[in-house]
Parts: sequence; structure tokens; C-alpha cells
Amino acid sequence: MATPLLKSGQDPASQADEPTSPVARFGPDAALAMDAGVDLAPWQIAYQTAGTLNAARSNAVLVCHALTGDQHFASTHPVTGKGGWWDRLVGPGKPVDTDRYFVICANVVGSCMGTTGPASLNPGTGRAYGLDFPLVTIRDMVRGQAMLLDRLGIKDLFLCIGGSMGGMQVLQWAASYPERVFAAMPIATGARHSAQNIAFHEVGRQAILADPNWHGGRYLDVGTRPAKGLGVARMGAHITYLSEPALHRKFGRRLQDRDAPTFSFDADFQIESYLRHQGITFVERFDANAYLYLTRAMDYFDLAADHGGVLANAFRGTRTRFCIVSFTSDWLFPTADSRAIVHALNAAAAPVAFVEVESDKGHDAFLLDEPAMISAAKGFIAAAARERGL
Amino acid sequence: MATPLLKSGQDPASQADEPTSPVARFGPDAALAMDAGVDLAPWQIAYQTAGTLNAARSNAVLVCHALTGDQHFASTHPVTGKGGWWDRLVGPGKPVDTDRYFVICANVVGSCMGTTGPASLNPGTGRAYGLDFPLVTIRDMVRGQAMLLDRLGIKDLFLCIGGSMGGMQVLQWAASYPERVFAAMPIATGARHSAQNIAFHEVGRQAILADPNWHGGRYLDVGTRPAKGLGVARMGAHITYLSEPALHRKFGRRLQDRDAPTFSFDADFQIESYLRHQGITFVERFDANAYLYLTRAMDYFDLAADHGGVLANAFRGTRTRFCIVSFTSDWLFPTADSRAIVHALNAAAAPVAFVEVESDKGHDAFLLDEPAMISAAKGFIAAAARERGL
Repeated sequence: MATPLLKSGQDPASQADEPTSPVARFGPDAALAMDAGVDLAPWQIAYQTAGTLNAARSNAVLVCHALTGDQHFASTHPVTGKGGWWDRLVGPGKPVDTDRYFVICANVVGSCMGTTGPASLNPGTGRAYGLDFPLVTIRDMVRGQAMLLDRLGIKDLFLCIGGSMGGMQVLQWAASYPERVFAAMPIATGARHSAQNIAFHEVGRQAILADPNWHGGRYLDVGTRPAKGLGVARMGAHITYLSEPALHRKFGRRLQDRDAPTFSFDADFQIESYLRHQGITFVERFDANAYLYLTRAMDYFDLAADHGGVLANAFRGTRTRFCIVSFTSDWLFPTADSRAIVHALNAAAAPVAFVEVESDKGHDAFLLDEPAMISAAKGFIAAAARERGL
Repeated sequence: MATPLLKSGQDPASQADEPTSPVARFGPDAALAMDAGVDLAPWQIAYQTAGTLNAARSNAVLVCHALTGDQHFASTHPVTGKGGWWDRLVGPGKPVDTDRYFVICANVVGSCMGTTGPASLNPGTGRAYGLDFPLVTIRDMVRGQAMLLDRLGIKDLFLCIGGSMGGMQVLQWAASYPERVFAAMPIATGARHSAQNIAFHEVGRQAILADPNWHGGRYLDVGTRPAKGLGVARMGAHITYLSEPALHRKFGRRLQDRDAPTFSFDADFQIESYLRHQGITFVERFDANAYLYLTRAMDYFDLAADHGGVLANAFRGTRTRFCIVSFTSDWLFPTADSRAIVHALNAAAAPVAFVEVESDKGHDAFLLDEPAMISAAKGFIAAAARERGL
């Protein structure tokens, strides 16, 4: 029903027989109760696993992916051919050790890599949902993951871990299902999206909506894709994932394969060429409506607002142990956002470690080879494993 | 020839009889020698003045406008109906005192408020230039202003002042015509554009180029305007003019005229509504191609590169006195950029004062009521006036 990758003009339904990962399907008896007030059914969730579930079923780890991530955290991506997006942190002998833990990562509800989202077939109309798909929240994503774990016979998680939008899911897991999360590690994230972050997302959405090939969200019906709008959205977002020092170090004002500016609107500077490439490659693997939905889910996220305006209330009585990680040069989710989480956990008397990693790589540092992050994860997870008796 | 405001589908030439300010016209005998290697002729420059030139012609002040600014620095804007964009700093009794000084502000070459730019009529084709207009540099803008001053019989400036792209022009003036600038005050600017700033500009340009109504830059010929693309470009840029604290204070996560999110892609948050408004009002007063050209001019600006890679070389032997101003929350032109200018001026043994203004208003602070900036300007200009014997 949902599509691993949508190609222009192709009926989404026709791709159902090309699964790139296992899929759990849920019928009308197992609708997904969404915050928008809709019971979504049928629906499905695509996932990947690595490692082996132990006999006690006590070694499960849930990896939560970021906005444009997917379930291919530790295996080759079916579209890009690249390795797993978190193979620096997850794998044999890595902090999330697939020799010791059973690791699951599921494509979130509203996305486009096999889980039901706006590009999926709407059984009520026989066409893709488009904007008829209900708005998705971080809580809906987590509900969907919980139903997947139920299906897999996993009662509780040894660890829930993720960065950025993945970190929001980790926080939501700890708040919604405290008894199911032994240890939680939200990285480079916040308990709510700031006005500036909402602003950047809104610009990206408007870029998509401005593309005439978007057709009011019905582009799949007419065989087009708003590739230019989505490309512009990605280019703008990509700047926010990096940092000024990282951009300066990587590109500076260096010219692209030339000695002098061309006095034209060509990509004279390497940074321009790089950004255009980011835009072009992104649209090959991502659905524009899914981008609208997932950015909106992040904008709506405000864990304190869901708990009487007091973030600590989200965590009262929890027995989950936390490790919070931020990066000094992350200006999308600055350290202050992580500190607010730490303060709330302190107020809720929850066990919490906090690591601010010195890095000039910006928000994307959580995806990169950051030794201090990797050793923090290794230490926290090993200690939690001992406490868990693993 | 050039147009004060372009309306969709209107022949640019037909607006030549609607001047909103004085215009100096230059024929083939006074071509503008542009860095792109083109001698532009005929060409014209639109300007506004306030105050009176004294008998010694020693009290002239040049105000340089920013990217989307224009010559209406101290008088009502003909399109928006708003007051002068710098009436907090310029006017009777203000730091740039129009009771004492003769103040000039000219629309820069490449812009769209009466000075020749891409929307002007190309005499070679009888159509608007579009992308046939030569790429413009900051140095070209300053050359054009110098020719205007020659025409007005003004040999040298008591003061050259401006913020952002206006500050770049001030630096270029001091470098190109040191003997013509008695005092210089570049505000919230840098001697070169950073990789991150080039990146943001490139996203804006791509948003315009992605709009099918842009028509390869020939939209005036076919009676359209790339309003959506230009609007998206403006929205994105506008975020960079503010600061996270300012956005948080002004908007936070407050909803727009409603108690709960609508679970839709409407402008739920006030910040979304504000940004959309910024995009819509901007396209009413600005030409999309001019936006392409002026952002490119800023990207190309690198004063050190023009002087053997050593910024101090741009100012060797200068007798101009400088006052450099930055704002703590300006992340587009952070204080480090101003410090680099100060260090270069120190190395060139030029007299320089440096003021970092504590403000949470971001880059746009230079346009706002910032008492510390205004008193710094007052003190610097008054002292310079005494030295000048005014």
C-alpha cells in the first residue's frame, strides 16, 4: 500500500510489491489512533532490524530516525546505495552493539519509505492520500512504533535512542510509555520547536507549495513531482544542519573548478554547487508531501504544553535513565534546549547524564564521526546494560 | 528609462515619466565602467537629498542603502507609504543632522527604484535587460555614486555611512576613493561575504529561478512576475535578519488568532503568518531580477581579495577616520566580521573606533531604535565635524 520510493507518474499502489524492508500491516481492527482525531486504517509500518532478540526479550533497542531519515540505519539504502545512516553508532562492536542488542528502526508514520503516509494509497478514494492524510504528530509516530513492538512481541525497550526529530520521539517515548523504556538517549534535540525553527520549516513548505507541479498536493495523480520546490526546501534546511565554521572550513569562498568568478548566476562558489547537489539528490529519494507532514509534526511538538506547561510533569515518577547530548555549534537545537530537558529531568528526580560535545560541525554532528558523542554513548549504554543485567 | 516600480505586464519604458525622485542621466560619453568588463551606457541613477550643501561644499554625507533598501532614506516611500527607512538616524537633530549636513542617498546600480538595473530598458533590444544586464559589483555601485557626486559638484564627502550591503559600499568607498571620504561608518557589515551568507543567498536565488513565472528572466516581456519565488526568497532571508531571541520574544510558539493548532498547513503560528506577510509585501515593491543581481554583488564582495589577499592593504595611507559598529545578536554579519575590519585598519594605522552594541534584535538592529548605536553615531559624527571645522 505505501511506497518505498515514488517515481513520477507511477501509481503508488503499483510499488507495493517492491518492499525494501519488512513491513507490519494493521487492519481495521488495529487502527492507528491519531492526534488529529482520525483512526487510520489500514496502515503499515516498514522497519529494519539488526542483531538477535535474546530469550528474555530484554535487549531490544529502538533507533528513531530524523526528519529525512528512514529505517535503513545499518544497511545499504535501496535508493542511494549508501551505507546505513548511523553505522558509526550502530553495528558490531559499536556503542549500540548489534552483537549484543536487537536493534529496530521503523520508518515513521507520515514518511515515504514504506510506512503509510501522504503518498500511500487512500483506500477510500483509490488515489494517493495527498493532503487528505491526517496531520501527523511525534506522538502518532511513537504510537505506531509501540504497535510495531507489540506485533514483534517486545514488551519493553532496553534503549530508545535518536537524534533531532528522532530525539523528539525518544522524549515522547519516555513520556508516553515510561514503563517500556529502560534507558533513553535523545541527541541534538529539544522538547519543543523554537520560533526560528518553525520559521525555517515554513519557508521550506512555502517553497514546495509555490511549485506549480505540486498541484495542491495531488501531483502523483497527474504524474508530476514538485522537484524544484522540494529542492529549494532542502537547500535551505541543509544550511541549518551545518554551522558557519563548518561551512567556512569546508568551502569558504573557494570557487568551483575555476580561477575567477564567471560574472554570472552559475554556481561559482563551491558552497553553491554543494547545495544544489543536496537539493537534487534529495528529491530523488523523498516525497514532497511527506516533507510537509514531517516538518509540521516537528513544529507542533511541545512536550511541556502537553503536560500543563511544565516539562518536568512529562517525566514525574519515571524510572528511565537518561543521557542527553548536545553539540556546541548546533544552532538548530542549541545546548540551551538540551539544558531545559536536563533541568526538567532533575526536577522530576530522574537519573540523567548530560554531555555537551565540543564540535564545529553543527546539528548534523549527531550523524558524523564525533568521538566524544560515540564514547558518551558507549559509556552510558554499557552502564545501563550492566544495570539491566545484560 | 529605468522604472520606479514595475507592475506585472507593464512595459518598463512606460514608467519613465513617473519619477519618484531626482534622476541623474549619463549618456554614451559618460558610460559606467563595470567590473564585468562592460561600459554601461546610457544609464541613470535616482537619488534623494535632504539638507543644504554649504558654500564650502564640505558638509556632504552619503548614505548607502542595504540590499532591498532604496533612496527614500528620510522621506515617504512612494510604494509602501512608510516613512524614511533611516529616519531614526537621519533627520533634523538626528546624528546625521539634516539641519547641518547635505545628505544624499542614491539607489544602487542593479536595483529597481529608478537607477538602471535588469528591469530597465535595454536600448539595444527595446526590451528590459533581464539577464542581459551585466553582473554588478559593490565597486560598480560605488563608481556610480562617485559619478553622481561629480555631477552634483561634490568633490568629497564629510561622511559615508551605511549598514549591511550599505556598509560594504562604505568600505569600498574608503578603499577606492580614500581622498574623498573624511569619515566612514560601516555598520553591521563585513569586508567579505561568508560561505553561510552565500549559501542563504543561493537558496533565495534558486527559489526565484524555480518559479515558472520567472521565464528565464524575461518575465516582463510576457507580463508575469515570479512573485511566489521572490516571496519565498524574502521569507528565508528575513529569518537571517532577525535573531532567535528576537523571534522568541516577538512570536515564540504563539498561535495566530486561535486557541489550538488547526492540524493543517494553515499559518497556525504567528511567526508563519508574519513571514508570509513579509514575502507578500516585498514582492509588491521589488523586482526579482534585481534581487538576483544585488545578492550576487554581495556574494562577490571580498575587499581583501582585491588587495592581494591582505585587507589592511585596502586602507594603507588612508586619512579617513572610521567608526565600526556591530550587534551582539547579528549572526549574518557577526562581530568577528567587524573585528577583522578593525584589525585591518589598525594594521594600516588608520584612526578607528569600534562599538559592539548589545542587542537581541539581530542584523536588522541597524534599522531600528538602538540607543547605543544612535549615541555612537552622534558622538563619532560630532567629533568628525569638529575636526572638519563644520
